[in-house]
Amino acid sequence: MCEANAYLRKEGEPDELFLEMVDRVVPCEDGLLLEDIFGKRKIIKAKIVELALVDHKIILERM
Amino acid sequence: MCEANAYLRKEGEPDELFLEMVDRVVPCEDGLLLEDIFGKRKIIKAKIVELALVDHKIILERM
Repeated sequence: MCEANAYLRKEGEPDELFLEMVDRVVPCEDGLLLEDIFGKRKIIKAKIVELALVDHKIILERM
Repeated sequence: MCEANAYLRKEGEPDELFLEMVDRVVPCEDGLLLEDIFGKRKIIKAKIVELALVDHKIILERM
């Protein structure tokens, strides 16, 4: 499976895991909608700062 | 490998392949920087409209 883990990046801190096994990411009114491979959804007011797919990483930053 | 293909979406048209085997996507001043697994880079003035990682798809829309 080619899902990725989503992490929150904060200046000067280690990246914090936000959601594992993310399949879909869709921008929405309130920021980003993330959906994992089981259909669990989380919305976060954040932007994508990096995708590193081979490393299975989505890096987000709160807005 | 868990790279994805990047497609350009245009209203009323089939998605158009923009770059295959994308590893990294990083927002930059001029839009998005995409890098494939071989290190080839393309910059496009676009935004992400959907990630569907299990389907290996990154959907972009020109800005």
